[in-house]
Amino acid sequence: MQFALRNDTIAAIATPQGMGALGIIRISGSDAIDTANLLFPKKDLKLIKSHSLHFGPLIFDNELIDEVLISVFKAPHSFTGENAVEITCHGSSFILQRIMEALIHLGVRPAQPGEYTMRAFMNGKMDLSQAEAVADLIAAESSAAHKTALDQMRGGFSVQIKELRRQLLDFASLIELELDFSEEDVEFADRKSLLQLLDIIFSEVKKLADSFRLGNVIKSGVKVVIAGRPNAGKSTLLNALLNEERAIVSEIPGTTRDTIEDVIVIDGIKFRFIDTAGIRESAETIERIGISRTLEKIREADIIIYLYDINTTSKEILEEDLATIPIGKKIIVTANKADQLPITNYQLPIAGSQWSMVNGQWSISISAKTGTNLESLKQLLIESLDIQKELRSGNETVITNVRHYNSLINILNAVERIREAMIIQITGDFLAADIRVALEALSEITGEVTNDEILGNIFGKFCIGK
Amino acid sequence: MQFALRNDTIAAIATPQGMGALGIIRISGSDAIDTANLLFPKKDLKLIKSHSLHFGPLIFDNELIDEVLISVFKAPHSFTGENAVEITCHGSSFILQRIMEALIHLGVRPAQPGEYTMRAFMNGKMDLSQAEAVADLIAAESSAAHKTALDQMRGGFSVQIKELRRQLLDFASLIELELDFSEEDVEFADRKSLLQLLDIIFSEVKKLADSFRLGNVIKSGVKVVIAGRPNAGKSTLLNALLNEERAIVSEIPGTTRDTIEDVIVIDGIKFRFIDTAGIRESAETIERIGISRTLEKIREADIIIYLYDINTTSKEILEEDLATIPIGKKIIVTANKADQLPITNYQLPIAGSQWSMVNGQWSISISAKTGTNLESLKQLLIESLDIQKELRSGNETVITNVRHYNSLINILNAVERIREAMIIQITGDFLAADIRVALEALSEITGEVTNDEILGNIFGKFCIGK
Repeated sequence: MQFALRNDTIAAIATPQGMGALGIIRISGSDAIDTANLLFPKKDLKLIKSHSLHFGPLIFDNELIDEVLISVFKAPHSFTGENAVEITCHGSSFILQRIMEALIHLGVRPAQPGEYTMRAFMNGKMDLSQAEAVADLIAAESSAAHKTALDQMRGGFSVQIKELRRQLLDFASLIELELDFSEEDVEFADRKSLLQLLDIIFSEVKKLADSFRLGNVIKSGVKVVIAGRPNAGKSTLLNALLNEERAIVSEIPGTTRDTIEDVIVIDGIKFRFIDTAGIRESAETIERIGISRTLEKIREADIIIYLYDINTTSKEILEEDLATIPIGKKIIVTANKADQLPITNYQLPIAGSQWSMVNGQWSISISAKTGTNLESLKQLLIESLDIQKELRSGNETVITNVRHYNSLINILNAVERIREAMIIQITGDFLAADIRVALEALSEITGEVTNDEILGNIFGKFCIGK
Repeated sequence: MQFALRNDTIAAIATPQGMGALGIIRISGSDAIDTANLLFPKKDLKLIKSHSLHFGPLIFDNELIDEVLISVFKAPHSFTGENAVEITCHGSSFILQRIMEALIHLGVRPAQPGEYTMRAFMNGKMDLSQAEAVADLIAAESSAAHKTALDQMRGGFSVQIKELRRQLLDFASLIELELDFSEEDVEFADRKSLLQLLDIIFSEVKKLADSFRLGNVIKSGVKVVIAGRPNAGKSTLLNALLNEERAIVSEIPGTTRDTIEDVIVIDGIKFRFIDTAGIRESAETIERIGISRTLEKIREADIIIYLYDINTTSKEILEEDLATIPIGKKIIVTANKADQLPITNYQLPIAGSQWSMVNGQWSISISAKTGTNLESLKQLLIESLDIQKELRSGNETVITNVRHYNSLINILNAVERIREAMIIQITGDFLAADIRVALEALSEITGEVTNDEILGNIFGKFCIGK
């Protein structure tokens, strides 16, 4: 693990690009404090207490760079577990760059993406799944994604996985012991207890693996396609959903989000609207929703809002369109332009019961233009997901990471193989091999066993400074 | 000064927008520590020492928002002079927004732009010109702009201005005293000493006012127009200048600048290339540089690079073009495409002496395509400014702020009026009035006398969180 065992002193700008009131440069490594000390003549940072703050001029090469605040963290009491210094300066790219130049001149190496978190992992400050959660936490855009990342960062299912691994490891030792005494035909490992443990592992791991469907939705957002014939009001609906949400987002001054079009958060769940040819501009070119490009988008979607003009769409057209949508997809059949209906003609409820089930599909009648029933449509999006109650059920652990999911599936397969092997009373050495596979898959998740490639993959995706 | 005397507790996100490793929220005001304490159950922040750091969970409404680092600053030992807390959290907009929401819920008010610096000013932590330098410091994009802003933030010419004001104030008091004894016809204020003081004030203030030409160039950048006939190679030259600079800028990982097109920094001085119709795209539409839109740009420019194809341009055309450029403008007559010349035809030096003066104008011969002599052209840009030696002369104070410049001009005018009044031996009461005008203009710079409108103008331009 050459890549990971480096412990030279590294530095990086830890705050986002751009102009702001403050910027932070992080330094970590055995020389962090000594190096910062060379730039900070006011005090001897080597003599001061950990977790203290010091204001003063930052000077390099006899030139004043800025007046800064220095935070000192002495090993092992820092994020990385190493000596660490944070320099808080004025939030100018120019100043941040000058400080980085000075540090590099003094022998500090610019940090790789994720290198701080990797060091925290290498120094035992967190396990691998916790380290991975740090990146997820920073990227979280909805309260559900935020909550699952935070849970995972604070330990999450690591404890559970580690305990299962420990128990399986005990069995593995006994079975390996049997191998040493193989000529004596003894059984140190009680086969019945092993089977019981395997059942527990299987059911706990299965539950975690099953939570990935929800986890993936939480992390990546629910993919929604608004489909429908030209002039059904698809863009109007999308804009109505987006605009309303934007107003809420900008309520807090100074926190305007990066404008990510077509993403809205409802009840803490992120919904990602996939652009279909019909939605945005070239409505004319699409005669019906059965056109290939739209169909492809529909296949990717978790939910389809099928939109039609309630004033002009016949029952036949409706049935024809709905028939083109692949079976098994969640559809919300949405009657638009209800505001133009003569009141007596209402075929679907607008107020009160708000939506209904028609032929096993959710149905709702709205007016994208006037906003009528839009709130109900949003609630229906949540309801149709059928995950809200899982989320509300409390502290259930949710897997959001595809690497963890793959490891969990590997564990399930290995456990299946061990159970089958035990049924046909396979010899101890084959059993031991299968158990080792399961152990390895368990270890991969928390990083008790790992390698450079895995670490490179994981931390390479982090941002610089983290 | 209602606007300024508020001392309620305020908070703002102090780091730039976007995703990063870390983000900071600043809280300032009498309740800053008490309020942060409500979100940080691990320790009682009211009992801990100033300038200390504390890591732990941030919890609001029984919900974990993040694991954060809390910095505590007790009044008056903070930037604002008030109780202050900085919350360093993971750099996610979502988390920053959640923390802001929690603080607002607890009665903290979102800060106005520049409100922190204004409080620092109101609490006597810095004078007005120092406060103004904070915004300039953050916006600085070149080492010269950075240096002048930093000098000003650390006191700069404030001391000088304050001392002149103190001396003038002494005289004013004596003259006001004379008015009280006006029937007795005494002169407490020695007229000769007053004249000497006025001379000193005039010469010192004049020197400061004169430095504004340089200061303005440093702060706003030198405006350069590349003018010339179609196919002279104007875009090639601009791109060559820009690209080279970009490569230097991106040397330090993680510090990619916001791409501001057409700005390059040479020897610490910012040059801003003004787009002329001819430079970018519609070269065909411009038959000669005398066209109105280009002429307008030329009038705005500090320096004109007049570019011509040395292989095809006759002496007559050259003289005709140069005659259209307004007299008094700095011109660098630049012969391009020198690489295509047969070597014997060289009329201008390429290497060695590098550039020359022809008819009182700088002349240089380059190849924008191959890069030949581009470095010399850059040095010539610096040289032609004639400011480098002023900059190198050391600690000369440089005025960069137009508000200060206007106040300095007001002082000069007032001093002139006082001197004239003294020559015609005007009575004490008129003299006193003129001196008051001069005193007021001196006070405006450092903010010893100010008003809401001035403060609003100044701090309204700051970024939020500063």
